[in-house]
Amino acid sequence: MKAGIVGATGYGGLELIRLLSDHPEVESLTLYSTSDAGKSFENLYSHMNTVITQKLEEINPESMQERLDIVFLATPPGVSRELTPKLAGRGLKVIDLSGDLRLTDPQQYTEWYKQEAASEEVLERAVYGLSEWNQKKIKEADIIANPGCYPTASLLGLGPIIQERLAIPETVVIDAKSGVSGAGKNPNPLTHFGHAQENFQIYKVNQHKHIPEIEQQLKTWNDEMSTVTFSTHLVPMTRGIMATIYLKLSEPQTTEQLLQLYENYYSMHPFVRVRQEGQFPCTKHVYASNYCDIGLTIDSRTNRVTIVSVIDNLMKGAASQAVQNMNLQFGIEETAGLQGLPLYP
Amino acid sequence: MKAGIVGATGYGGLELIRLLSDHPEVESLTLYSTSDAGKSFENLYSHMNTVITQKLEEINPESMQERLDIVFLATPPGVSRELTPKLAGRGLKVIDLSGDLRLTDPQQYTEWYKQEAASEEVLERAVYGLSEWNQKKIKEADIIANPGCYPTASLLGLGPIIQERLAIPETVVIDAKSGVSGAGKNPNPLTHFGHAQENFQIYKVNQHKHIPEIEQQLKTWNDEMSTVTFSTHLVPMTRGIMATIYLKLSEPQTTEQLLQLYENYYSMHPFVRVRQEGQFPCTKHVYASNYCDIGLTIDSRTNRVTIVSVIDNLMKGAASQAVQNMNLQFGIEETAGLQGLPLYP
Amino acid sequence: MKAGIVGATGYGGLELIRLLSDHPEVESLTLYSTSDAGKSFENLYSHMNTVITQKLEEINPESMQERLDIVFLATPPGVSRELTPKLAGRGLKVIDLSGDLRLTDPQQYTEWYKQEAASEEVLERAVYGLSEWNQKKIKEADIIANPGCYPTASLLGLGPIIQERLAIPETVVIDAKSGVSGAGKNPNPLTHFGHAQENFQIYKVNQHKHIPEIEQQLKTWNDEMSTVTFSTHLVPMTRGIMATIYLKLSEPQTTEQLLQLYENYYSMHPFVRVRQEGQFPCTKHVYASNYCDIGLTIDSRTNRVTIVSVIDNLMKGAASQAVQNMNLQFGIEETAGLQGLPLYP
Amino acid sequence: MKAGIVGATGYGGLELIRLLSDHPEVESLTLYSTSDAGKSFENLYSHMNTVITQKLEEINPESMQERLDIVFLATPPGVSRELTPKLAGRGLKVIDLSGDLRLTDPQQYTEWYKQEAASEEVLERAVYGLSEWNQKKIKEADIIANPGCYPTASLLGLGPIIQERLAIPETVVIDAKSGVSGAGKNPNPLTHFGHAQENFQIYKVNQHKHIPEIEQQLKTWNDEMSTVTFSTHLVPMTRGIMATIYLKLSEPQTTEQLLQLYENYYSMHPFVRVRQEGQFPCTKHVYASNYCDIGLTIDSRTNRVTIVSVIDNLMKGAASQAVQNMNLQFGIEETAGLQGLPLYP
Repeated sequence: MKAGIVGATGYGGLELIRLLSDHPEVESLTLYSTSDAGKSFENLYSHMNTVITQKLEEINPESMQERLDIVFLATPPGVSRELTPKLAGRGLKVIDLSGDLRLTDPQQYTEWYKQEAASEEVLERAVYGLSEWNQKKIKEADIIANPGCYPTASLLGLGPIIQERLAIPETVVIDAKSGVSGAGKNPNPLTHFGHAQENFQIYKVNQHKHIPEIEQQLKTWNDEMSTVTFSTHLVPMTRGIMATIYLKLSEPQTTEQLLQLYENYYSMHPFVRVRQEGQFPCTKHVYASNYCDIGLTIDSRTNRVTIVSVIDNLMKGAASQAVQNMNLQFGIEETAGLQGLPLYP
Repeated sequence: MKAGIVGATGYGGLELIRLLSDHPEVESLTLYSTSDAGKSFENLYSHMNTVITQKLEEINPESMQERLDIVFLATPPGVSRELTPKLAGRGLKVIDLSGDLRLTDPQQYTEWYKQEAASEEVLERAVYGLSEWNQKKIKEADIIANPGCYPTASLLGLGPIIQERLAIPETVVIDAKSGVSGAGKNPNPLTHFGHAQENFQIYKVNQHKHIPEIEQQLKTWNDEMSTVTFSTHLVPMTRGIMATIYLKLSEPQTTEQLLQLYENYYSMHPFVRVRQEGQFPCTKHVYASNYCDIGLTIDSRTNRVTIVSVIDNLMKGAASQAVQNMNLQFGIEETAGLQGLPLYP
Repeated sequence: MKAGIVGATGYGGLELIRLLSDHPEVESLTLYSTSDAGKSFENLYSHMNTVITQKLEEINPESMQERLDIVFLATPPGVSRELTPKLAGRGLKVIDLSGDLRLTDPQQYTEWYKQEAASEEVLERAVYGLSEWNQKKIKEADIIANPGCYPTASLLGLGPIIQERLAIPETVVIDAKSGVSGAGKNPNPLTHFGHAQENFQIYKVNQHKHIPEIEQQLKTWNDEMSTVTFSTHLVPMTRGIMATIYLKLSEPQTTEQLLQLYENYYSMHPFVRVRQEGQFPCTKHVYASNYCDIGLTIDSRTNRVTIVSVIDNLMKGAASQAVQNMNLQFGIEETAGLQGLPLYP
Repeated sequence: MKAGIVGATGYGGLELIRLLSDHPEVESLTLYSTSDAGKSFENLYSHMNTVITQKLEEINPESMQERLDIVFLATPPGVSRELTPKLAGRGLKVIDLSGDLRLTDPQQYTEWYKQEAASEEVLERAVYGLSEWNQKKIKEADIIANPGCYPTASLLGLGPIIQERLAIPETVVIDAKSGVSGAGKNPNPLTHFGHAQENFQIYKVNQHKHIPEIEQQLKTWNDEMSTVTFSTHLVPMTRGIMATIYLKLSEPQTTEQLLQLYENYYSMHPFVRVRQEGQFPCTKHVYASNYCDIGLTIDSRTNRVTIVSVIDNLMKGAASQAVQNMNLQFGIEETAGLQGLPLYP
């Protein structure tokens, strides 16, 4: 395959380069950038010195269609909305890591993203790339809307229980925590070391763009689902997301039964690992990998379930899930290029 | 005042020394230890070199009663249960920072702490030292059960709304996050740097000893309150607790009304600071201080309130609240020795 | 005393506010800012909410001379050069925390700072405020050039050995490491969390502005001293500097003799603590305090001395040394307002 | 190849598993442990859940000789000394990651390691596995003494300049800084999070076991070299070593000439990357990779060279260099299984 990355200099782009450089089926990788076109990549990022020595190229949809089989858009909001329709088709598949194509309802996009939505035509062609759940559609899609980091952790944690209608809809609370890299590579006061180190912050309370994305998928699974409470926090670490999810059961269950349900749902999915009863994952268990690890328990005192779901926000929450989707789209081994073990310590 | 500290070599003890050394009304400070008696303090902790040069003394209740006006017990579970009745009285006041005297029901203590409870007599004499709420009783008490770190953040965040019976009892979820110092000074695999750094961990799910302590006080405020869901996480930072609290309202309110309620409740309490609408505290806002900062908002989409309450776990969550209680007990200025501004950055 | 701070919103300014708010001899504190004049301080920094509620004022030299006894300039390079002569005198003392007034030779300033130097007249009036060494002059000065953070750690570590001419001049190497707060409060790529966390960086190799400042003082002590090699590194922590200093002895000494020499030199200086043989300080031993802790040893294999000197870069390396200088200037207790114990853990 | 790891549960062992699991020429991997034999690996380390599911086996030299082609010893000091002679030979190659076989002089081993040395026979068979320098011998060796982490960074930084006799021998100072993982997986007070976080520590001043290892290799390159000053510090991060090396030149050079020298020496060695003039590596540039990145400059003011050499202590400083040595021993591509790009951010 011949792959390209637009927006290669952001954190998502960097991880895509790392993964695709080592992918057995990717024979060439071209990097694109608006702002840095013409510059040598290794001069921008010394950790890639002597390895990624090529120059960044200008975005040119026509030549990209000729030259590439797959292109990843790791771009800021508002870019892929315009760019995708110019790229997708004629043998070129697009995986969009921005949020532009995730919400099927343009009005909702405008409301949460505070800008114009993509055209309905593009939105209809785009398939939501939650790899473990939408595999059939992903295989056929030429446009993938790659899920957000928080939605990936939250939805993989909620999928089985929501599909089985075991949750009382209005009781779902998702308390999510992310490493600081989730805020991207551009310096700002919240991510300045002196502020972020030895600090735990809550941000965008009830206003995060990932809220409608989570709700949309929950409703797809279960039309009785409505709104959820979803909070986001910044943890003084670089990588990792934990979603701690609370909900009340609509009918009695044991922890053992629920874990069995999850085991069944994910038995064919190598990247979701369900912990044994009494055990819970931490973010370092999935560091730099494509895994999503899940633990859960029922509190008999409150009849409330606590589900713990962890991912690496830049990997399963962005770049490695995109590669997993590419694997699915091209009919190659789902795990190709993704078999690296988590980094520990 | 002549003050003493038992268990001076733990993290709580260290903070007590720092505060009491600089307290305008404390004229002498004696340090006690079972394991390190006879050793010079500065040899155990180099940061106190040339300043805290005294030797640690053996615990001797009789001489302590003669010599001291106030003694702080910063001891492991099971110690103060025995020690307190030998110390309290004859002019000696006791502030216990361990959990031994917090639960009024011995059976509950045994259930959660997995060991024998203090005698009912001692438990009856002990007053729960949540400084902002129990001031009258604290002033008269000769035994104070100093609150746990998580309960302090949680209860100050919940107090007004629970007292006013504005919450639907069974909807309360407390998602709490703590810096690693909460686990104490003894090395173990969870707090080993290689494991804890770049990691976010959940622990003791539904089993933390602070659960019954929180519920007991909530019931004191509102007898309809029953169980709460309470989770604890380890953040890769040394200090700080954030409790993110979720609940549904029993009657319609605006964010403005709720904030006004909190302002009113805490108007006479200099150490609780309520944020303006749209603003939320982070843990660094209270670093190394006695403050508890609170922000809140109502999500009109879910009719759920999110309350954010932060403290420094070793300060308002332990040592500085103990000093605040001492100030109240001795009728001196509540803020004496506690006016240090938070450390930032 | 009536004190003022210009540049109160930087990291140095924040620490000055924390210290002066709690200083027994400071009766009023006025905050000045060019960019933020008119704004309420607590709105800029929530950790000071309800405590530092005053507004930032415009800089007005005339009214400042009338109103203040002492003014601290915590300003970027190039500001105090102009401002100091307008302020100093008529009963107003100035302590400048920027580097503008430290180098007595204007040409050297221009060479290292790449901008115009202060007038010779101002430079002549300014006394270098290394508190432990220049006490006599400091007491009489109306302009203090407060030392840089690295020079403070380095010079206190080198003082006795250089004064006693025990070092072979050209053998001195200072390998210095600083917490990230040394780079100030403005976000930039080097101090962005995703870059600085889990990273150890060297910067400004052989080009740091503190080099001529160190050399100037060493030559004052010993006219045979010439250049030193001085390197600076960024440690993924907020606060703290360690200078590891290497040099060869000009005549045989034992570690014991050298330690005794240091003990003697610093015996009257409560803020410099010399470790016993075999013990070395770490940066956390002086966290948030005015201490400089020093350890040293001779390696009999190489005949080289290793001196380890640690400070808190924002405290002894900036704000608290400035307060110490103020105390000296006003003839009050040197330790007034500076007796807080280091924060640990 | 059939590979085995003894001491698979330490940090070095974990990285070996991660690398060998993904190595194209390794067909089987057997894990051995004295203390944990019989236990399933995934139960000890949840990050390997579902992936490394095999049981740890007892050490049995005979069956290991039959079964394996290569065995890695990631064991504490004193183990491989005994174990190596029982394993090496009969077609089984040994790579020892402990320090037992690095010093050729048994007396020196005893002096620095404070225990009995390996037999001279074993020491003579062992080849020091600094991959870039000893390739010929490594290819023929059946026992490799894999270098220590600090020596790897220091020696790769010093190699060309020492071989070319451009340094004045007694002027070499190595100021080395390591992430905390260098201290291993066993919790202790120095690596306890509350102590190590926001702290920069110096340790084992002039007493580190890596000193004789560095000096031995320097003398091999240049018999005029004698002792060096070598210091070690703990950085509050998990991974990474920076050695900042200082020395005086024995004859005039320009920075450009020196860089060209290094470029030439390492032109055939893909894992050593020399920075352009004016640029220096930071530890994150090599995170989780086998790279050693080097920058250097001459200070015309002091005629001293500063060399900066960085590695990942667990990778090039342990596990990945061991794999590189295995590749060399078995005549396969030197980069096999080691092509992963550094992890950033």
